[in-house]
Amino acid sequence: MKKLINNPTHVVDEMIEGYVKAFPKHVKLLPENKRSIVTAKETRPEKVGVLIGGGSGHEPAFMGYVGDGMADGVAVGNIFASPPPDPILEVTKEIDKGAGVVYIYGNYAGDVMNFGMAAELADLEYGTNIGTVLVTDDVASAPKEEKEKRRGIAGEFFVTKAAGAAADKGYSLDDVVSVAKKANEYTRTMGVGLTPCSLPQTGKPSFELEANEMEIGLGHHGEPGIEKGELQPADRVADRLVQEILNDMPIGSGEKVAVLVNGLGSTTQMELYIMFRRVEQILSEKGIEIHRSYVGSYSTSLEMGGCSVTITKLDDELMELVDYPADCPMYVQR
Amino acid sequence: MKKLINNPTHVVDEMIEGYVKAFPKHVKLLPENKRSIVTAKETRPEKVGVLIGGGSGHEPAFMGYVGDGMADGVAVGNIFASPPPDPILEVTKEIDKGAGVVYIYGNYAGDVMNFGMAAELADLEYGTNIGTVLVTDDVASAPKEEKEKRRGIAGEFFVTKAAGAAADKGYSLDDVVSVAKKANEYTRTMGVGLTPCSLPQTGKPSFELEANEMEIGLGHHGEPGIEKGELQPADRVADRLVQEILNDMPIGSGEKVAVLVNGLGSTTQMELYIMFRRVEQILSEKGIEIHRSYVGSYSTSLEMGGCSVTITKLDDELMELVDYPADCPMYVQR
Repeated sequence: MKKLINNPTHVVDEMIEGYVKAFPKHVKLLPENKRSIVTAKETRPEKVGVLIGGGSGHEPAFMGYVGDGMADGVAVGNIFASPPPDPILEVTKEIDKGAGVVYIYGNYAGDVMNFGMAAELADLEYGTNIGTVLVTDDVASAPKEEKEKRRGIAGEFFVTKAAGAAADKGYSLDDVVSVAKKANEYTRTMGVGLTPCSLPQTGKPSFELEANEMEIGLGHHGEPGIEKGELQPADRVADRLVQEILNDMPIGSGEKVAVLVNGLGSTTQMELYIMFRRVEQILSEKGIEIHRSYVGSYSTSLEMGGCSVTITKLDDELMELVDYPADCPMYVQR
Repeated sequence: MKKLINNPTHVVDEMIEGYVKAFPKHVKLLPENKRSIVTAKETRPEKVGVLIGGGSGHEPAFMGYVGDGMADGVAVGNIFASPPPDPILEVTKEIDKGAGVVYIYGNYAGDVMNFGMAAELADLEYGTNIGTVLVTDDVASAPKEEKEKRRGIAGEFFVTKAAGAAADKGYSLDDVVSVAKKANEYTRTMGVGLTPCSLPQTGKPSFELEANEMEIGLGHHGEPGIEKGELQPADRVADRLVQEILNDMPIGSGEKVAVLVNGLGSTTQMELYIMFRRVEQILSEKGIEIHRSYVGSYSTSLEMGGCSVTITKLDDELMELVDYPADCPMYVQR
C-alpha cells in the first residue's frame, strides 16, 4: 500500500481541511464537528435544504457535490463508515431555511440508524421538518422483489441532482422528496470490480480476486457481488452490466435516459470511454435515447479498480432537473 | 495488468468513439483520420483557432479540453505517442476561421516534429497563419538555465486555459500566442511517482520502484526523475515539490497564483486534498495568495500512482483568463 498521506488516523480530517481551503468561495466547514460542510453562498430563505452524506473514500461523493443546484450541506463519515448524528444535525441546523430539509443517503445500516436519529433530534430540538430519501440503486445487492433492501451506490448522483435542482427551483419539501424518490425508482446501477482498494489504517485489501478475475455486482465497500469469473473483454462486460439493468428495469424504444459510466478509483478514463462506447451501442440498438452522458469517477471506492454503469429513466420532469445547471467544487454543469 | 478493454490495438479508436458518442453536443469527429476531434458548436468567424494534442493516455488531457473557452480542436496520438501531421492538419483546416490557428503542445521530440510539419503544410496548402506555443513546465526535466529544453506536463492545462479564453475574448493570433507563452513562462510543475502504469499493448510497467519507494520529478511517460527515495509523509512530499518550484520561480509575498494538484491516474482524491492542504499552508505562510485551486486528475499517465503540483503566477491579465468560463466535456468552469 503506497499512499500520499500523513498519519492514517487523520486522513479524513486532513482531506476535509484541504478541500475547504481549496474552494473557500464554494464551501465552508462548520465549527463543532469538523465533519460538517455547507455551501459558502447565501441560501435564499424558504429554500428546501438538501443534505447528503456518508462514509469517506467515495470522493467526489459526497462532499464534492455541495453547491448551487446540488446539496446545501454534507456530513462526512470516516472511511467507509456513516457519519454519526452530530455532524448531520449540525448541517441540518445550518441549512434549515424554514422550508425543511431532505436527507439523501445510501441504504446502509449505519447510515439508516444515524440519519434516522439525526432526523428525530432535528425535529425535537429545532422543529425542522425532515424528509428522507434512501438510495437503493445497486441491482446486484438484493432481488427485484426486495428493491427496498438494495444498497445505494453511484446512482445517488442522479438522486442528488434531481433533489438539488428541484429545491433550487422552489419545490416544497414534499415535492423534493417525491421527485428524489422517483429518481431513485428510475435508477439502476451494476458494477464490476477488478482490483481492491486498501484502507489507510489497515493497509488490507477490501476483497480478493485472482490475477485474471473480475467480480460482477461487487459493492462499493467490497461487499460480495453475484458472480466471479475470468476477466472478459470490455464489450462483454458492458453487455452483462446493461443486460442486468434492463432485466430489472425494462426500458422501451423511444424512452430517454441519462447514463453514468463511473470509475471506481484507479480505472482510466480510456477504459471508461471504451465501456461507454458499448453501452451506447446497446441502448442505441434498442432505440433508447441517451439524453445526457456522464463518464468519469463520480463515486469511487478509494483506488478500487473497475467501474459501474448507471441508467436513469427520464420523464419530462427528471429531464428538466438533470439539465438544470450545477456548480460544485467537484462537479459543474452549464 | 487488468484493464477493461477489447483488442489492445484498438483502445485509442474505441476511446475516441465512446467520447464522441458521449458528448455529441460538444464534440465531433472529423472523417479523414478518425483522430481529429473538433468542437461541435459553430465557431464565430475571425476567432483564432486553438489546437491542442499529443499522445493518448493522459485523459482528460488533451481531448477532454475541447469546448467553449478552451480548445477548438484536438489531434489525438497513440498511447504516449505524438499524433502524426495528418490529423493535426485536418483539425487546422476545420478550425481556421481566417484569423489563424495556435498550436499548443508539450515539448517532446515527436510532437515538435509532427506539429512543425503540420504548421508548414497548413501554410503551404491553406495559407493558414500558425502560431506555436511549446509547453515546458516540468521543473525536473532540465536545469533552470535551459528551460526551453524542459518537457511539458500538467501545466499545459493553464496554458490552454489562457489561450482558449484569450481567443474567445477576441485576441489576435499574435496576442493569443503571446499570452499563452506568458502563461507557460509563469507556470512550473513538479511531480512524484509512486506506482507505474502499464501499456495496454505490452502490459509492461512504465518504470520500476521498490515497494516503499517514490521518485521525485518522474516524467509523465515514466521518464526518469531527479531522485528516488523512501516514500515520505504527504506533507514532506508537498514541501519538496513546492520548494523545487519556488527555487526555480521565486514568488513574492502578495503575489497571486493558481494551483493545480493533479493526480496521475490511480491516486485518490483523498490523497490529492491532503497534498493540497500542505501546499496551501506553505504558500499561505509565505503570503502568496491562491486565487484559484484545481484538485483532481487533469493530466494522467494511464493508471500511474502519484501526483504533481503546478503553480502559475497570475498577473491581472492571466487572472482574468483563468477566471473566464469554460465548457468542455471533461472540464467545466462557471
